[in-house]
This record gives sequence, structure tokens and C-alpha cells, in this order.
Amino acid sequence: MTASVAFIGLGVMGYPMAGHLANGGYTVTVYNRTTEKAKRWAEQYSGRWAATPAEAAQNADIVFACVGNDDDLRAVTLGEHGAFATMKPGSIFVDHTTTSATVAKELAAVAAKINVAFLDAPVSGGQAGAENGALTVMLGGEQAAYEAIGPALNCFAKMHRLLGPVGAGQTAKMVNQICIAGVVQGLAEALHFATHNGLDANAVVDVISKGAAQSWQMENRAHTMVEGQFDFGFAVDWMRKDLGIVLDQAKASGCHLPLTALVDQFYSQVQSMGGGRWDTSSLIALLNRQN
Amino acid sequence: MTASVAFIGLGVMGYPMAGHLANGGYTVTVYNRTTEKAKRWAEQYSGRWAATPAEAAQNADIVFACVGNDDDLRAVTLGEHGAFATMKPGSIFVDHTTTSATVAKELAAVAAKINVAFLDAPVSGGQAGAENGALTVMLGGEQAAYEAIGPALNCFAKMHRLLGPVGAGQTAKMVNQICIAGVVQGLAEALHFATHNGLDANAVVDVISKGAAQSWQMENRAHTMVEGQFDFGFAVDWMRKDLGIVLDQAKASGCHLPLTALVDQFYSQVQSMGGGRWDTSSLIALLNRQN
Amino acid sequence: MTASVAFIGLGVMGYPMAGHLANGGYTVTVYNRTTEKAKRWAEQYSGRWAATPAEAAQNADIVFACVGNDDDLRAVTLGEHGAFATMKPGSIFVDHTTTSATVAKELAAVAAKINVAFLDAPVSGGQAGAENGALTVMLGGEQAAYEAIGPALNCFAKMHRLLGPVGAGQTAKMVNQICIAGVVQGLAEALHFATHNGLDANAVVDVISKGAAQSWQMENRAHTMVEGQFDFGFAVDWMRKDLGIVLDQAKASGCHLPLTALVDQFYSQVQSMGGGRWDTSSLIALLNRQN
Amino acid sequence: MTASVAFIGLGVMGYPMAGHLANGGYTVTVYNRTTEKAKRWAEQYSGRWAATPAEAAQNADIVFACVGNDDDLRAVTLGEHGAFATMKPGSIFVDHTTTSATVAKELAAVAAKINVAFLDAPVSGGQAGAENGALTVMLGGEQAAYEAIGPALNCFAKMHRLLGPVGAGQTAKMVNQICIAGVVQGLAEALHFATHNGLDANAVVDVISKGAAQSWQMENRAHTMVEGQFDFGFAVDWMRKDLGIVLDQAKASGCHLPLTALVDQFYSQVQSMGGGRWDTSSLIALLNRQN
Ligand SMILES: NC(=O)C1=CN([C@@H]2O[C@H](COP(=O)(O)OP(=O)(O)OC[C@H]3O[C@@H](n4cnc5c(N)ncnc54)[C@H](OP(=O)(O)O)[C@@H]3O)[C@@H](O)[C@H]2O)C=CC1
Ligand SMILES: NC(=O)C1=CN([C@@H]2O[C@H](COP(=O)(O)OP(=O)(O)OC[C@H]3O[C@@H](n4cnc5c(N)ncnc54)[C@H](OP(=O)(O)O)[C@@H]3O)[C@@H](O)[C@H]2O)C=CC1
Ligand SMILES: NC(=O)C1=CN([C@@H]2O[C@H](COP(=O)(O)OP(=O)(O)OC[C@H]3O[C@@H](n4cnc5c(N)ncnc54)[C@H](OP(=O)(O)O)[C@@H]3O)[C@@H](O)[C@H]2O)C=CC1
Repeated sequence: MTASVAFIGLGVMGYPMAGHLANGGYTVTVYNRTTEKAKRWAEQYSGRWAATPAEAAQNADIVFACVGNDDDLRAVTLGEHGAFATMKPGSIFVDHTTTSATVAKELAAVAAKINVAFLDAPVSGGQAGAENGALTVMLGGEQAAYEAIGPALNCFAKMHRLLGPVGAGQTAKMVNQICIAGVVQGLAEALHFATHNGLDANAVVDVISKGAAQSWQMENRAHTMVEGQFDFGFAVDWMRKDLGIVLDQAKASGCHLPLTALVDQFYSQVQSMGGGRWDTSSLIALLNRQN
Repeated sequence: MTASVAFIGLGVMGYPMAGHLANGGYTVTVYNRTTEKAKRWAEQYSGRWAATPAEAAQNADIVFACVGNDDDLRAVTLGEHGAFATMKPGSIFVDHTTTSATVAKELAAVAAKINVAFLDAPVSGGQAGAENGALTVMLGGEQAAYEAIGPALNCFAKMHRLLGPVGAGQTAKMVNQICIAGVVQGLAEALHFATHNGLDANAVVDVISKGAAQSWQMENRAHTMVEGQFDFGFAVDWMRKDLGIVLDQAKASGCHLPLTALVDQFYSQVQSMGGGRWDTSSLIALLNRQN
Repeated sequence: MTASVAFIGLGVMGYPMAGHLANGGYTVTVYNRTTEKAKRWAEQYSGRWAATPAEAAQNADIVFACVGNDDDLRAVTLGEHGAFATMKPGSIFVDHTTTSATVAKELAAVAAKINVAFLDAPVSGGQAGAENGALTVMLGGEQAAYEAIGPALNCFAKMHRLLGPVGAGQTAKMVNQICIAGVVQGLAEALHFATHNGLDANAVVDVISKGAAQSWQMENRAHTMVEGQFDFGFAVDWMRKDLGIVLDQAKASGCHLPLTALVDQFYSQVQSMGGGRWDTSSLIALLNRQN
Repeated sequence: MTASVAFIGLGVMGYPMAGHLANGGYTVTVYNRTTEKAKRWAEQYSGRWAATPAEAAQNADIVFACVGNDDDLRAVTLGEHGAFATMKPGSIFVDHTTTSATVAKELAAVAAKINVAFLDAPVSGGQAGAENGALTVMLGGEQAAYEAIGPALNCFAKMHRLLGPVGAGQTAKMVNQICIAGVVQGLAEALHFATHNGLDANAVVDVISKGAAQSWQMENRAHTMVEGQFDFGFAVDWMRKDLGIVLDQAKASGCHLPLTALVDQFYSQVQSMGGGRWDTSSLIALLNRQN
């Protein structure tokens, strides 16, 4: 007997993730705020769609969500017609949204009262990773629940790992974003400097990407940064949302993130340039502008 | 007939580099300011040592140098008993020191007058790379000279490339160091944050090093950073020397490096903590201190 | 006939402010969460105390508040037994707490429904200003309400001004805190540099405080900064609360505050040193530490 | 008998300073690289001009200089036809240029050999201060020499003070510039924030300039910053020269100046916008740009 699952939020990430679950043999019922997308998905994957999260969730063994932010997640779980209204005892809620650890803990507490396990499970790998089923999933929650959803995660993830109690997945994702802020700003300054000093930046990158300066961003973004192409990838607006969460948690936990705080302000300047939807590598545009 | 070469500066880097040349069949005459080290080298590699750079250089087809900084390089080339006093027309001077591009251009101009080709050729890969013959060499200068020394470079480098006219090698090395400044500070903040928020930082690194946050530093330094071990690697004092060169060239060329300038000041604080000889990954020590 | 007023929150600031109103001839009823302080105040100033904000506010023409943060303010206004439960139509609520502009607008909207005018009125001048009746008050709200409370403000303020609609007072206070962040960090670096370079920092300050480097902080804090004395003044914990509000509003309004964001992180480091209650001038302690 | 003095460098600052000396009764011989300016000065003040620094200095009791930077100062003292070639034993050299402390110490040592006293004496107060005879002078050197030139300084300074041995004047000037960097960036962020949030920035400044956020820059530059007027005052190019000196000395003395280093990079961005000759308050232009 195949498990019945629900998927809430068919955005850039959720749509293909739900698709991989359907292709993997799961009986999937989807919910999306904009119904049109849910219908299209149901047609494409021969699945079902529901008019509310509550309806989608009601017979599901696992309910997945991948929506926008903390408030969006509260809406689809606790709101009127939210998933928690109908989830059955013993079922599991898996949140793939990037949110604060606070909301994860808050919802896990509510879920516990109705005997539902909650796993925070933010992903990395971007649109391409979602489409190719090659995401990385960082999880927080109980081991038993994690093991139960392992086969489902395998449908769209090349790597997943339980990193601690509820909130640990979100906190790990924050660690990921902090690293990226430093790497990208450093790379942006380096390429700005290379170009202004007459080097063939691409040639230099080929050489230095063999050593201690190497990074995923260097291998995957340096060439487009040199070209000034940013119309793809992980949007600055999303990055600012994530860094906002990071800086709040840093404050609450007594951590100091001087570079992250500074880069967050630089991203604010990218937004003012009209780059809210540009890839995070667009930090270089600030350095290169002349007026 | 094997080529005769000289090697000036038998420090952490130069000693093994000169050794690889000897092992590769070159007739090597070394010079080192502290003679004791030159004698030891000559014994170990059955080579010769000279009392001055001029003496070491006088019959050499190629003269290599790897000393400390701009002034040191001027001393061993232009100084009394410097290599330029005796180098023969048609020979090649290869500088492996990390210096400014300015001194490279200055020395190349002097060398040209005595018909000596000058190549700036800073390296990356550290002590281990030098010992294992696995350095990366970034070069600036003339194509013909570069081609002529290629076989010699192969003795200690796994990768080398001509990146432009004289100075291009040094400028490329600066690009490398700018990248590292950003990567390391970002990683330091990320690991500081992970630990303070109760995560197993090593486990998180295992997961996120598969994606967009990945870097050489993450793969090779995160674990020691978490342990607070810094007694190895590329020293903060060297890094500050290099970042000083970077910031000077940025100013001269109208580039803006806000992150690099800031991280340079953080390294100044590491020096005040007594960390001048620590690895560059010691930036995390600043974030973790409590008093 | 003298006006009847209420004062909610008898902390470091509120206690003497309420006292000046009593001394100025107002009939004052105070409320404080910790009742002991309210009783002490009532005795000292021959005033009255109430057990709840609602009770204190019920016959008042003006209700003043000076509590801790946004949530505290919501508690004493909207909470059970909050002031809004009993305030009479035509009365005025004046908030001297430093809060977000958001909460000011939110409460003004609620107050409007019960025909109560709301003025946000954060102060500067510190404990000394409150005790000496020499505060500066920055206000947001309606002109008529502002004029009505002018005589009362004169009891404890040497300067007050209406700067725009509701929220304008809080936003002006944020402008104030941003300026301070820059001034203090610059001054801290300057004095750290002066001392490390063998100057008599106090003598230098005497000279440069006549020109373009002059600031209130230089005239009032440089000497104690040089001594390393921080057990007075405006606490780092309060400053971080305020800068958190600033950075949130900057984000919401598309402003970029790189220096402010960075200094906020430095204050986080002061907190880790145990300096949460130190004066904001303690930023210099970070620069001076050696371990 | 009135003293004979020489003045080298008739720029924006030197021209009126030399004029005040002439008006004060000194017999002044001027030198300027561009002779035209020297002739004009001699005519305007009925003084004398010389074709070289050596010629100007040869009978002088005091030789003043106010040229551009370290190298310029070396040129007019040590260079061929430099002042040190002819200065008489027992005379005094007073340098009003803003330079490094290093060059001050270097020249003082050379001067000592010819029995000339050297005082480093950078000024603040800008063009207006020079024209109105209201400069502040920060001095380093011997007490006796300082006392001997006091009456001359009074011609153009409203305040002067000996702050320590040679170099102390320059170091004090650096302290001044560090303060300004912090004040101006903080003020720029504050005004950017005020305007973007709908406040009347001038009104806010009027209010907050009575308290802890007050600064000379706020009182003298806020209004022009709000207007975006920068075509006056102390040029960004000069500020970058000065901050370069500051950061070099910080490095040499083991000081940490994170904010100063960062603001220096922001000034680099102002230069790229074409603002090299704008007043230092132009940092706000970076925050306000939208493209
Ligand atoms: N260590 C590393 O991991 C890396 C270093 N580099 C760069 O390589 C260069 C050398 O580094 P490293 O080998 O570690 O340094 P060391 O300090 O170990 O060696 C420096 C060498 O230069 C000689 N030297 C210094 N000054 C003079 C002088 N004025 N006259 C003559 N000889 C002089 C020293 O002689 P003596 O023995 O007498 O002191 C010694 O042989 C530096 O520019 C460094 O930035 C680049 C990549 C990695
Ligand atoms: N201190 C200063 O120099 C300056 C302070 N400010 C601002 O003024 C405000 C007050 O500061 P300050 O007086 O120093 O603070 P204190 O901590 O001394 O006093 C805070 C007051 O608020 C009361 N309070 C806090 N939370 C609640 C709540 N939830 N319900 C009821 N009462 C509550 C406290 O009651 P209890 O006595 O029971 O704890 C106390 O009376 C803050 O917003 C601060 O940022 C502005 C300028 C200068
Ligand atoms: N302007 C200001 O507001 C302030 C300036 N300062 C400092 O004062 C100094 C002078 O500034 P300012 O008067 O504005 O500068 P200007 O550029 O107006 O004048 C510079 C003067 O130096 C002369 N000069 C420059 N280089 C040489 C050289 N190599 N040989 C001979 N003469 C030379 C110039 O001669 P020529 O006429 O031939 O070009 C000119 O007389 C600087 O160090 C500056 O940082 C300090 C406080 C305020």
C-alpha cells in the first residue's frame, strides 16, 4: 500500500518536489493558494488537488509544506482551514520552507498536542536542485519521524540528514546562508579588482579555483558575475529574508556576525538598484557602478 | 646538458622548492641569508651553496627567488652582491615571493636593461604544496620566458599559467587573497553561530559542503576552526602583508574592497591576541572570545 | 483647575519625570508593575498610585507612559487592565518609551476608535536629563494634541517639538541613535589609536574638540573612555534594543545603514564581555582588549 | 627688529597663512612651485618671492611649509634647492602639511644634523580657517622651538598646542580624521534614513543637535547633505590621503580601526562617482543613489 501524502505550496520549489513524490509512487494531494497552479499540477502528474490545506491534509500520512515565510507557514497550518485542523494522529508534518527556528518550535509544540510529529526541513540546491531531484535537506525533529519520511525525501533529495531537535534544520540552513554571504562578497570584490586591474578574470578563476580560494560560488558564478548577468538563481529578496532570520537568531543567542550584517546592508543597496530578483551574486554590481 | 639554476631564499617555501628542482635533475646553487640553512640544503640535496645572491646567480640560466616582501626582493636583486649584478644576458629571473605588482614592474624594467627576462610568479598551496611539489603558480611576463621555464616549474607545481604582462602574476595572487578573506570570515561567523546555537558544527558542515556554501576552506579548515586549532597553515602575519599590498593596489586602481578592508582590521585584532603566527582561519577566535 | 494626569512606568526615566509633573502642579496618579516603587513615589511626591494602568488612567486628561519596549507598551495599553480600557473620550495618551514607529501607528489607530489622541514622544537626555527636567522630546501626532500637552512637557523638558504625524517622534529618535552609533565608534577608534601611539589623549581631545571632529560624545565621554569607565550612562542593552528597531525600519523602508549594522554587531560583542549595562561609549573596550 | 620668515607652498591653505604673517609684521619671503602664484602673493602683500625653497629659506629665522604630501615635503626640504640646503643654524622649520609621522621624524633627524629645529604642525579649520586666521594647530617637537614660534602662529591660529615630541602633531591630526570618518558616516546614514522615512530632516537636526547625537558636522553639514551640495569644504581626495596615512600608522602600531577602514573604502566609491573634489560629507551620496 502506497502512502498518501499532501503537498502545500506549489512554487518554484514545491511544484517539482511534489512532482517527484508523485513520480515516486506516492498518492499526492496538492494545495496551492492560487488554485490555477494546483489544477495544472494535478493534470500534469495525474494527482489530486484540494481547495484548502485542511482538505489536502485530511487523510495524509505525511504533509509537506514549502511556502514563503514564517507568517505564510502559520497561515497554512494554524489558520482557518489550516492543515493542523485535519491532520490525523500519528501523521507527520514536514516543513521545507526556510523560516525561523522559533516558528518551527512553536508549531512543533502545537502539533504535539494533536499527536502529529513536526520536522523542520529547509532545503538547498535551488530551482535546479528541485527540478532534478537533487536537493540537500537539513532536518530537525525526532529520529523516528525522520526515518519514516526517508523514502519520501529520497524522491527529490540527493542528501538529507537529521541534525538535532526541532529547529536544528532551520539553524543549519542559516549557517549555510552566512557562509554564502561571506563567499559572495569576497568573490565580488576579487572579480571587481581583477577586472579593474586588467586581468582576464575568467583565466584567473581557472587558476585559483584549484586552491585555498576555491568555492562553489567561484566555480558556478564567477563567469556570470564578470558578465554582469544576474537574471537567474537565488533572489536577493529571498536572501534578505533569510539574513533577517539569521540576524534575529544571532541577537537572541548572543552571536556576533559583523560581516553578515554588513553584507545584508549591501543587499539592501542591490534592492535599491532594482535587483531584488537578481541572483545573490549581484553584489558585484554595487562595486562596479560608476555613478 | 642540464640547465644551471640558482635559488635565493630557503624559507618554508623555498627550501623544498629548490629541493624539487635538484631532484628534477637541475644543477642548483642556493643562497640563503642565514648560511646555515644553505649548507644544510646543499648537503641534503648534493647541491652547491653560495655566499651571496650575486655568486649564486652568476652562471645560472634561471634564477629563482622566494624571500619575504618587496624590500627583501629589492635587496637580493638590486642590493650590493644582488643577483642582477652577475646575471648573464638571456637568463631569466623568476620571483616566487608574494610582492606588490609595482616592485615586479620596477625590477622587470631594470632587468630588461641587462637583457634579463623577469617573471613574477607567486605561488599558492602553502607549505604542504611546496613539500609535495603541488603548488599553483600564477605568472606575469613574456610568453617566451614563461615557456622556457615551464619544465622547471613542473618540478614543484601541479598547475602554472601565464596570466598577462609583468605584474599579472602578483595581481592574480591578490585576487586569490581577497577571495580567502571573504570565505574565511563568512565561515568563521557561520561556525560561531552554529556552535552557539547548539548544533554539531561538523555534522552541519558535512551536509552544507555539498552545495552553494561549499568552499575549500570549509572542507579543509572547518573542523580545526571548531576545535580552535590554528598552529599550522598560512600565518596571519603573512596574510596582513598580502592584504596590505592588495589595499594599496586597490587604492591606486580605483577599486573598492569594503569587506577586505574590514577583515584586514579583524586580522589586526588576531595579531593583538598573539595570533600573528596562527593560520588565517583564526578569525573565529575573535568571535568566540568572551572577555 | 489643574489637570489630572496618569503616569505609567516609574523606571529610571519615568520616576523623575512623573515627579516633575507633580512638582509642576499636576494631580498625578502613577502605576508601576512593581507596586513598591509606585508607593514610594506616591509618598515622596504626595501623589496617588493605582493598582493597574486602567485604574490610573480612568479620570486622566493625559496619560503618560515610559515603559521598556513595544510589547511592554502593548501590555499597559491593550492588555487586560490596560489604560485604553478606561481612558475617557477627548483625553490624550503620550508615550515616552522608545519603541518602533509601527507600534505607535498601531496604537494610535486603536486609540482613535475610542476618541483618544495618541502622541509618540520618545526622549533623549538620559537619567540626568530626566532628573534635572532637561529632556528633549521628539513628537509625532496631531498638532492640537501636541499643543494641549505643551505645558505638561515643559515640566521635564528643555526642548520639545512636533515632527510629523504619529510615528515621527520614534523615527526622529532612531535618527538620533544612528548618529550616536557612528560618533561613538569613530571616537573609540580615535582614542584607541591616540593612546597606542603615545599621545596624551585628553590633551588631544582638548585641541580637536574646537573643530570639525567635535561632538557631544567627545566632550562628555572621551575622558571616561580613556579611563575605561563605563558604569553609568545609556546602557548597551538599551542601545541594542533601539538599533534593532532602527534596522527593522531601515529594511522596511529600503534604507541602507552599513555602519549602523556593523556597530550593532560590535555592541553584541560588548554584551559578551559582560557590558550589557555599560554606557554606549564602551565600544572602546573591544579595541583595547589584548586577549 | 622683526623676524625674517619664509613660507613654502601657496596653496589654498598656505597662501592666506603667509598673508597673515605679512600682515602681522613679519618679513616674509615666499616660494611656490608655480611661480605665478608667488608673484601674485608678493604683490598683494608687498612681500618677496624666491625661485627655490633654498633661496627663500636662506636668511630666515623660521621656515614654514604647507605643501601636499610626504613626497612633496621631502622635495622642498631635501631635494635639490631644498630648504635644508640653506637654513641657518638655530633656525626653525615648521611643517603645516598633513603628512605621516614617519616623514616628520625622518626630517627632524636630518634637520638636527644642521642644527635646525623641526616642528610638525598640521592644521585644522579648512580654507575658511586659513583665510580668517582661525586655524587650530597641533604640534610635535621641542618646547623651546614651540615657544619661539608662538607669536607667529598667533597670526593665523586661534588655538595651538604642543602635544609631544616630533610626530605628535601629525598623530593628533590623524586622531582628528578618524573621528570625522565616524561622525560623517553616521550622520550620512541618519539623514538618508530620515529623508526616506518622510521626516523633515532639517527639523529633526534642529532638535537632536541639542543632545548626545550632536556634532560639529551635524551643525555645519547636515543641511547641505540633505540638499546634496558638496562643492565646497575638505575634499574627499585629501581625506583619502589622510586616511591612508592613518591606516598605515595603525598597522605599524598594532591598532585596529574597522570603521575607519570601511569608511575609507566608501570614500573610494565617492571618488568613482566623480566626487574626488567634493566635501567629505558626500558619503550620503552613496546611500541615496538608486541605480
Ligand atoms: N608560507 C606559506 O604558506 C606561503 C608563503 N608565500 C609567500 O612566499 C614568500 C616566502 O614565504 P616563506 O617561505 O613562508 O617565508 P620564510 O620566512 O620561511 O622564508 C623567507 C626567506 O626569505 C629570506 N629573506 C627574507 N628577507 C631577506 C633579505 N632581506 N635578504 C635575503 N634573504 C631574505 C629568508 O632568509 P633567512 O633564512 O636568513 O631568514 C628566508 O630564506 C612570502 O612572500 C610569502 O608571502 C606564498 C604562499 C604560501
Ligand atoms: N535610561 C535612559 O538613559 C534612557 C531611556 N530611554 C527609553 O525609555 C524607556 C524606559 O527606560 P528606563 O526608564 O531607563 O527603563 P527601566 O528599566 O528603568 O524602567 C522600565 C519601566 O517600565 C516598566 N515596565 C517594563 N515592562 C513592563 C510591562 N510589561 N508592564 C508594565 N510595566 C512594565 C517597569 O516596571 P518595573 O518597575 O515593574 O520593572 C519600569 O517601570 C525605554 O524605552 C528606554 O529605551 C530613552 C532615553 C534615555
Ligand atoms: N584644504 C583644506 O581644507 C585643508 C588642507 N590641509 C592640508 O594642507 C596641505 C595643503 O593643502 P591645500 O593648501 O589645500 O593644497 P593645494 O593643493 O591648494 O596646495 C598645495 C601646495 O603645495 C605645493 N606643492 C605640492 N607639491 C609640491 C612639490 N612637490 N614641490 C613644491 N611644491 C609643491 C603646490 O604648489 P603649486 O601651486 O605649484 O601646485 C601648492 O602650493 C595638505 O597636506 C592638506 O592635506 C589641512 C587642513 C585643511
